[in-house]
Amino acid sequence: MYQIHTDLAVESRELYKEREKREVPGVEVEKEEEDNYTVTRVKIVNEIGMQSMGKAIGTYITIDVPKLKKTDEDLKDEISQLVAKEIKGLGKNKEDSKILIIGLGNWNVSPDALGPKVIERVLVTRQYFVNYNKEIDETVANVAAISPGVMGLTGIETGEIVRGIVEKINPDLVIAVDALASRKMDRISTTIQISDTGINPGSGIGNKRMGLNKDTLGVPVIAIGIPTVVDAATMINDTMDLIVGSMKNEAQVGSEFYSMLNEISKEDKYSLIQEVLEPFMPNVVVTPKEIDLIIDDLSIIIANGLNIALHPGIDLKDVNRYIR
Amino acid sequence: MYQIHTDLAVESRELYKEREKREVPGVEVEKEEEDNYTVTRVKIVNEIGMQSMGKAIGTYITIDVPKLKKTDEDLKDEISQLVAKEIKGLGKNKEDSKILIIGLGNWNVSPDALGPKVIERVLVTRQYFVNYNKEIDETVANVAAISPGVMGLTGIETGEIVRGIVEKINPDLVIAVDALASRKMDRISTTIQISDTGINPGSGIGNKRMGLNKDTLGVPVIAIGIPTVVDAATMINDTMDLIVGSMKNEAQVGSEFYSMLNEISKEDKYSLIQEVLEPFMPNVVVTPKEIDLIIDDLSIIIANGLNIALHPGIDLKDVNRYIR
Amino acid sequence: MYQIHTDLAVESRELYKEREKREVPGVEVEKEEEDNYTVTRVKIVNEIGMQSMGKAIGTYITIDVPKLKKTDEDLKDEISQLVAKEIKGLGKNKEDSKILIIGLGNWNVSPDALGPKVIERVLVTRQYFVNYNKEIDETVANVAAISPGVMGLTGIETGEIVRGIVEKINPDLVIAVDALASRKMDRISTTIQISDTGINPGSGIGNKRMGLNKDTLGVPVIAIGIPTVVDAATMINDTMDLIVGSMKNEAQVGSEFYSMLNEISKEDKYSLIQEVLEPFMPNVVVTPKEIDLIIDDLSIIIANGLNIALHPGIDLKDVNRYIR
Amino acid sequence: MYQIHTDLAVESRELYKEREKREVPGVEVEKEEEDNYTVTRVKIVNEIGMQSMGKAIGTYITIDVPKLKKTDEDLKDEISQLVAKEIKGLGKNKEDSKILIIGLGNWNVSPDALGPKVIERVLVTRQYFVNYNKEIDETVANVAAISPGVMGLTGIETGEIVRGIVEKINPDLVIAVDALASRKMDRISTTIQISDTGINPGSGIGNKRMGLNKDTLGVPVIAIGIPTVVDAATMINDTMDLIVGSMKNEAQVGSEFYSMLNEISKEDKYSLIQEVLEPFMPNVVVTPKEIDLIIDDLSIIIANGLNIALHPGIDLKDVNRYIR
Repeated sequence: MYQIHTDLAVESRELYKEREKREVPGVEVEKEEEDNYTVTRVKIVNEIGMQSMGKAIGTYITIDVPKLKKTDEDLKDEISQLVAKEIKGLGKNKEDSKILIIGLGNWNVSPDALGPKVIERVLVTRQYFVNYNKEIDETVANVAAISPGVMGLTGIETGEIVRGIVEKINPDLVIAVDALASRKMDRISTTIQISDTGINPGSGIGNKRMGLNKDTLGVPVIAIGIPTVVDAATMINDTMDLIVGSMKNEAQVGSEFYSMLNEISKEDKYSLIQEVLEPFMPNVVVTPKEIDLIIDDLSIIIANGLNIALHPGIDLKDVNRYIR
Repeated sequence: MYQIHTDLAVESRELYKEREKREVPGVEVEKEEEDNYTVTRVKIVNEIGMQSMGKAIGTYITIDVPKLKKTDEDLKDEISQLVAKEIKGLGKNKEDSKILIIGLGNWNVSPDALGPKVIERVLVTRQYFVNYNKEIDETVANVAAISPGVMGLTGIETGEIVRGIVEKINPDLVIAVDALASRKMDRISTTIQISDTGINPGSGIGNKRMGLNKDTLGVPVIAIGIPTVVDAATMINDTMDLIVGSMKNEAQVGSEFYSMLNEISKEDKYSLIQEVLEPFMPNVVVTPKEIDLIIDDLSIIIANGLNIALHPGIDLKDVNRYIR
Repeated sequence: MYQIHTDLAVESRELYKEREKREVPGVEVEKEEEDNYTVTRVKIVNEIGMQSMGKAIGTYITIDVPKLKKTDEDLKDEISQLVAKEIKGLGKNKEDSKILIIGLGNWNVSPDALGPKVIERVLVTRQYFVNYNKEIDETVANVAAISPGVMGLTGIETGEIVRGIVEKINPDLVIAVDALASRKMDRISTTIQISDTGINPGSGIGNKRMGLNKDTLGVPVIAIGIPTVVDAATMINDTMDLIVGSMKNEAQVGSEFYSMLNEISKEDKYSLIQEVLEPFMPNVVVTPKEIDLIIDDLSIIIANGLNIALHPGIDLKDVNRYIR
Repeated sequence: MYQIHTDLAVESRELYKEREKREVPGVEVEKEEEDNYTVTRVKIVNEIGMQSMGKAIGTYITIDVPKLKKTDEDLKDEISQLVAKEIKGLGKNKEDSKILIIGLGNWNVSPDALGPKVIERVLVTRQYFVNYNKEIDETVANVAAISPGVMGLTGIETGEIVRGIVEKINPDLVIAVDALASRKMDRISTTIQISDTGINPGSGIGNKRMGLNKDTLGVPVIAIGIPTVVDAATMINDTMDLIVGSMKNEAQVGSEFYSMLNEISKEDKYSLIQEVLEPFMPNVVVTPKEIDLIIDDLSIIIANGLNIALHPGIDLKDVNRYIR
């Protein structure tokens, strides 16, 4: 079966529902709407849900904040706290957990630099636990953090680097932060996905062949991702659908024109677009012009969220000060 | 008359020819094809050409290098030399010219950072002429260089900063380097435009309201630009044209389907696309994912070209060493 | 008369008092000691004070914060507010003042990058006043900001660039931020000097030949500086004095040894040190190893101080959010 | 026995010879003087040499290039080739060797960023060998490269990260690049040390507690280092010796003055200096003001040297093009 890949569980669900005209089986959905944001918790509970969604069994929390693009500092603080709450809600970290945060992506490619930028801004504390031979601290958790780069930079599979480090420092929990691709432009930099299933092959903007999950690392892996690009073919496809849709509204039902319009909006349109774009496809993305600045802002939100979620003694009052 | 804006004179010409089905009046075109590149010299010779093209009177040299994206170091050297030759060919700089190079654009926005990156890499020498009270030197020309930033960063119109500096140091020639927008994806990072008309309002990726040209600065201005983005609406428009074109090839001439397809490819399609994209339009661009690295490479080619063109004692052997 | 140059008025005063064994004439001194900091306000009130101090007539406020090196976020906030208070206390800016902030120094040289880093972090608003044609706003002042680079980067005297811009945008007040050299290691990154005399030739780490002051720019200039380096000869000189001093304490008064030690601590020692260091003198500095990180922190304190001082609607609660 | 630590084998030897007034036992020295540089090969051949030098058994090649600070591009090319020749001369890499280059140091601390900057500029190829399942290639060797950061950034001991990666990718040779501390200002950025003994605890600018050597990694480790700082106490000590020496030349032999001067130049002077500097000692370094730019240049020389040494098909003609 033809299945469009998406990094976002909410998009997998949308695609399934469009195609099958019903809710995805094996999936539980919970929605919480607030003034500034919507939280959707999609739980894939069994094999059927896994196959229908094309995603691993587990919980996928999506935070949608349509106004996040605007520079509203209070909103950013609100979302940092929400991210913290949702991370804690997954129940994977305790006060004495040893945590390793991994910033995935290529720091030289703006829309892919979210992970490395978060790493620059999280509070790293493991060195004090090592140097003072401590097991637990009242104020801060034991946190290490690294950006392993991408294979094009290091020549080494990211997963190998992470596995090598995990085997040396034995964390209780790994948190991987990554930039994602979305199918919809309006999700760019306004949607945050948090899941307890880790990173699975094929995710993210680049090609990640080895997963970072409990199977490969031996410990739970929380994945935090934000879409920062839309692939060009998807965007054209969706825009054409909108245009054809607006033409259909004006065409007479039953006319050749109408049936032809129906004809157009089939899946081979997507292949046609891909074919047309082929020569420059693999590397073309659609992204906000000011993506560098947006990534800066988002990395602060996520780093703050992590700092609040992980360290018992850090709250919103302190958190803007730990970032640079 | 509806006129699509483009920074590239070759595209203005293409648009005119598509629309009017004839060569642009008041314009002289000269083409030189080589193995690795094509040079097109478009001269707008009078008012009629100016209005038809929507561009200032003067010479617009376009260097197309389809293979420039690939990492072929010999090709890059060849193009640096070609850029140098074409700059010299404009006849605006002499051995004793005092030259000011301006790197336009926002260094925090990857596809807009071409100008600032070129400035980091050109050989700056004016300080020696000032400090040793020299008028001329056998090896190097008198070159100053600055990146004035954009209004969003400084709060000051770029043109005001440049005018302020020009009035203080009185150069004989200003060279402005800028990232451009193209209508076609395949021109991104493969086309270099060199013109002796300066920068005119509305050019470049950002909004430049004041021109940098002989009128505003009082000295000749050479503009060097490379397209680094395509605006999303244009790209979708062009892709749809290709798709509709391929459908038309298969439809029967005279059928309702065929005439409907003809219907689609009108100019209101572009407005429709713009309307659909509206919510996120102003800042969405289509750009290669690795634009940061591409800009690095292009800035070296342009900086090398400038170093060879301006300094009598610097040739290809030396030139890779002046860049960082 | 032999006079050691120092950028800090408090050091000029110390040097005068050491040499002449009395308070500097023509100078008024006011001291305010608090738990975490000391504020010293040195006013040079006449020509005699000017010549004795080797500094322009005006007010020099020195804020000493011995513990500033430590990462105490509350202390940093306290100092930002103190900086704001002292800037406002100079009485040079009003609610409707048009202000131009200049970040002096070379962004490629870590201890010289304070000015440019402050510019990255101040809130720039002039564009809104221009675009909306406003004269005054209740919340924000009219602020432009630029880092003009140094002559080695641009080939242009910094003062020429600033004068060019000032003539175009006509600010009511210029504020120049610069890294300074100190005579004492313990002032590095713990002392902030704010003066209403602008920048005068010979100040700062680099060589600035043209002043930025009311004479050259036509408007008041507030200078904000923090010492980030000690020159190597000065440091060795001071250390030797300490060592010789501790030897003298142990030597018998009247012995040849004692008189010889007295002999050593003369001013030719400084020349001797300079001679010995000569081969690598011009560019050697003594600086904390982590100066890059220290400059980051200091630039946030100064940018926050400026944001609070200049914009009527911004207070400490908001201020950490405007920095990046 | 009191032993001053130095990262450079030539300095260990100098210190031993000063102290013991004879050549170091258990050490073989070979010197090669050319117009632009001197190569000194110090081989520690047995336990006695090891203890006298305070360094591991093995070969230490020192390349001294007094004029390296000047911007002479031909000299830089010459030294890149020399570095390549000396690396190859150690006989540790073959055409089919799998090599891992490690860039040690903190990228946020300018004088410590040599290693990470070299990593940005070496040609990384392992990904092609992995993706195309190749064992050997005629033109390029199998090279991976990573900058593991420092414990203050990641919370993880550098040695653990490197060991983790080595266990995953099993290289045949590790090459570690690091910034060193020197005892003499004139060695800063003019001396390159290449050794086949790896990195041993206590080396480098920061504190590296775990060695990177055959014992810890299981494969040969070549260490390449360049001094980029002098510690402040050492520099003052050496300057004082020079000053006292010049006083002694003028004093009468046998006078109290003369014997007193003799008195001064003892080892407790060094402790005294350390005591005086104590409050700001741990982090104060003496470094050229333009160390950022110098590190850039040196990283190009080392990266070029590595590219020539490791890849059979890359020579001087190509090498300037692989760097950025």
